[in-house]
Amino acid sequence: MERGVALGERQPVYRRSMKTADREPTHLPATAAVTVPDGGLTLRRVAIDTYHENVAYLHRDCAVVRAEGFQALSKVEVRANGKCILATLNVVDDASIVGCNQLGVSEDAFAQLEVPDGHPAAISQAEPAESIPALFRKINGERLTREDFRAIVRDIAQLRYSKIELTAFVVACNRSELDREEVFFLSEAMVASGRRLDWHASLVVDKHCIGGIPGNRTSMLVVPIVAAYGLVFPKTSSRAITSPAGTADTMEVLAKVELPFQQLTGIVRDHHGCLAWGGTAHLSPADDVLISVERPLNLDSPGQMVASILSKKVAAGATHLVLDIPIGPTAKVRSMPEAQRLRRLFEYVAQRMHLSLDVVITDGRQPIGRGIGPVLEARDVMQVLENHPDAPNDLRQKSLRLAGRLIECSPDVRGGDGFGIARDILDSGRALAQMQAIIQAQGSHGFDHQHPALGALSLEVTAPQAGLVTAIDNRQIAHIARLAGAPKVKVAGVDLRAKLGESVQAGEVLYRVHASYPADLEFARQAVARSSGYSIGEAGQLPHVFVEF
Amino acid sequence: MERGVALGERQPVYRRSMKTADREPTHLPATAAVTVPDGGLTLRRVAIDTYHENVAYLHRDCAVVRAEGFQALSKVEVRANGKCILATLNVVDDASIVGCNQLGVSEDAFAQLEVPDGHPAAISQAEPAESIPALFRKINGERLTREDFRAIVRDIAQLRYSKIELTAFVVACNRSELDREEVFFLSEAMVASGRRLDWHASLVVDKHCIGGIPGNRTSMLVVPIVAAYGLVFPKTSSRAITSPAGTADTMEVLAKVELPFQQLTGIVRDHHGCLAWGGTAHLSPADDVLISVERPLNLDSPGQMVASILSKKVAAGATHLVLDIPIGPTAKVRSMPEAQRLRRLFEYVAQRMHLSLDVVITDGRQPIGRGIGPVLEARDVMQVLENHPDAPNDLRQKSLRLAGRLIECSPDVRGGDGFGIARDILDSGRALAQMQAIIQAQGSHGFDHQHPALGALSLEVTAPQAGLVTAIDNRQIAHIARLAGAPKVKVAGVDLRAKLGESVQAGEVLYRVHASYPADLEFARQAVARSSGYSIGEAGQLPHVFVEF
Repeated sequence: MERGVALGERQPVYRRSMKTADREPTHLPATAAVTVPDGGLTLRRVAIDTYHENVAYLHRDCAVVRAEGFQALSKVEVRANGKCILATLNVVDDASIVGCNQLGVSEDAFAQLEVPDGHPAAISQAEPAESIPALFRKINGERLTREDFRAIVRDIAQLRYSKIELTAFVVACNRSELDREEVFFLSEAMVASGRRLDWHASLVVDKHCIGGIPGNRTSMLVVPIVAAYGLVFPKTSSRAITSPAGTADTMEVLAKVELPFQQLTGIVRDHHGCLAWGGTAHLSPADDVLISVERPLNLDSPGQMVASILSKKVAAGATHLVLDIPIGPTAKVRSMPEAQRLRRLFEYVAQRMHLSLDVVITDGRQPIGRGIGPVLEARDVMQVLENHPDAPNDLRQKSLRLAGRLIECSPDVRGGDGFGIARDILDSGRALAQMQAIIQAQGSHGFDHQHPALGALSLEVTAPQAGLVTAIDNRQIAHIARLAGAPKVKVAGVDLRAKLGESVQAGEVLYRVHASYPADLEFARQAVARSSGYSIGEAGQLPHVFVEF
Repeated sequence: MERGVALGERQPVYRRSMKTADREPTHLPATAAVTVPDGGLTLRRVAIDTYHENVAYLHRDCAVVRAEGFQALSKVEVRANGKCILATLNVVDDASIVGCNQLGVSEDAFAQLEVPDGHPAAISQAEPAESIPALFRKINGERLTREDFRAIVRDIAQLRYSKIELTAFVVACNRSELDREEVFFLSEAMVASGRRLDWHASLVVDKHCIGGIPGNRTSMLVVPIVAAYGLVFPKTSSRAITSPAGTADTMEVLAKVELPFQQLTGIVRDHHGCLAWGGTAHLSPADDVLISVERPLNLDSPGQMVASILSKKVAAGATHLVLDIPIGPTAKVRSMPEAQRLRRLFEYVAQRMHLSLDVVITDGRQPIGRGIGPVLEARDVMQVLENHPDAPNDLRQKSLRLAGRLIECSPDVRGGDGFGIARDILDSGRALAQMQAIIQAQGSHGFDHQHPALGALSLEVTAPQAGLVTAIDNRQIAHIARLAGAPKVKVAGVDLRAKLGESVQAGEVLYRVHASYPADLEFARQAVARSSGYSIGEAGQLPHVFVEF
């Protein structure tokens, strides 16, 4: 085996010693110091599932390993049939897993290469990401340029960053380490990293909430109302990450949400709107990679939030966005000055991205609606669409106001008239008809919202004393709903029977927890025992209403 | 398979959905939600080398995997025979790798469990590290308490932090995010995380250099001189991480350096000093873990440097430390104000740790001695010890001054007398005899320093014009020596023939590069072609001498 002598122009080439304290091989390896001629190895599928992390397996006696420069945990590039993937190397001593002339890859990696077992394959040291010097400058507190952000985000989207590098980037950008123009550069680079949809319409509306309020399923009402009015509203949503349900999870109770891109565009053409999962559209893919380290670290800084939300919306082709920022003692934003700072940052970046943005600051003191969990929320949504007498009024009112704001984006609607138009569309049944058409187009799941099947196991949480409901903790209620099984168990969750300001008697039911599995119910019961999330007191203890919206 | 219902008291228990965007399973898993009764699985050694990362392998049809809560990349605890290790889970679809009732572990993990193949074993979700809330507070810019640092460092030393969490900690602590008392808390916690040696002596001396200067092998002279004087000097060193040689690499040319702890203490008792590799002593183990992410990110902030160095020295039992801070245009520290800030931080933390510290600021404008690389540096050291006429005088002078400072730690030596005492010990041959005794005690490698075998391949770098050597770039020279093979190839490196301020003729040899492999020499040749590291000019261009030491 000849060792290659080509030297990368940009990066030092270090040989690694097994004995150094350095355990992270991502950087030190040379640029393609050792390359096996095509045909030297054959590909072998190793039936090990390593999830999102590609792993390559070479036998210790393989010539490539012997030719040094390779050792366990090296970052490598595997090439076969013109495709190239990045992987982490494991060294194998058992020829029944991989032989000396085989290049083993884990299941996910094998699928990505799209060639059969036994196909010729090649392996080389992975080149370090080109944007690493810019990353180092950000870690050291420097301001980065537009080109720096573009290079970093491109490398992130191409999965060229190790977890260490990803984490360093998000932590270095956390807090006030990005100025507002840098947030714009980051957002713009995130759009450029993926697909950008073009709906061939001068007005494409969207709405988004920064999150944190359980049951807040306004999109499933705003979309049919605004689409019925005739505006183009191609709504793509995420699944829940840490909440008991995302819009995609709740919509999935009613219809298919994982739609091929062609079908999605057809539905929007025919019905003006859709309610689909955004994961298939390859919009702002760097955002999904960054989230993989932001979530475990509870990072949700203003800059990251703005870049994440606006990049997704611009990539999805929106021209007009209504953004919902709820305020409350247990919401993400807890004071009006904080909300105003966040609003200004959203507005600055949106304007630089030529996105027309209308920020609405809403009441985030308690969950919206009654149900929390996919099926319970779908029930609430359908009740509002049907003008059912039991329909939760807060969900109806908030949805009408948001829909009204979007309808006012239309040049022929006067400011202030949107709410009335939205109400007419809802009250007349046109919104329900529009929703049913969208459900049929996406593929109905035949959900019987009149008689929703809820989790068979349940427990009731009651008021310990008579009084007024003076607080409902958004986080604790969401936590209890997650423990009960939501969103994975669609019929699980929390059904609220009393809301803020209502008076209850001792022993009266505050909410019911639904679950499908005894262990889930037990988890939820123990969480309730620690804190029910409800406070019962007197009128004077009600939290200040921050906003009237 | 029964699902456990015990609930952790401190951490929320979330079930994970494969469909969420969250790719990092470290936190969400429950505390021991699913535990297999002992005897349910048997251990199987899977012959895959995953280096420092333990991997556990379960078959997809194994009851534990089916009982959900487990998926690929989950962090798990594997227990067998009273031992417990943390590992990352891979899910396997090939029963020839692991069967349904087997719990496979990678080679390193298997070795750590110290039980035979087929032994009963259990697996459960790993508990999230207890100090994570404190980590989140540091990420958000809060000041941490002594107890916070203790909890974080303990979790790090026990390998309970993921790479993401480790990186977040070091990046959040980077720059001026730690005040000097926090640096003390961190240092103290790092000492507490490992073994602390007690030499049963009131005066235990040590020396350390912050690094960055090639060829700076003063320890190998200071130890025999000061030990010959009679002070206890148990010197443990690291191997090179990014430099062409660490003290342990160079000493290994002469003698064994990986010594069992018992042997090391015996040598110090008999000979007052040793020159050993510190890796076996379990001193400040959290430091080694942190380095694994600091190195790839080029992080070397003052706080991290101080905590790393002082924790190792205090754990090694030192009572008196002389610390060498070189300054120069291509040294780690480039100006006197920067050196003074660093000195004050070292002094503050040392005083809080009851370590007597003497900081010396030295000339770091160029490499010390002539040889760079293990064998070349060992040759220089032995020439100084033998008072050979070719011995590099800068290495001799610097070593005598550092040794003098340490000798003055002795209460019966007057300030200013140390240098003379050290010189007498060196000139009389007592230092050489002491070194030979230490070499014999550690296990001599029989190095022939009179005729050192250097790498058979070499190239000479010559002066392009006549003039004075006005600059030698420490970093470029180190880089060239690394490319030539040092420290892994002990006979490789750079041999300097001209030092700063010397006049050279056009075509005169500036340095010689030695290598053992053609590819290494070619790498070095290309680096030399980009920059030789030498500047030839006039006397007026010589850099300012920052210090006379």
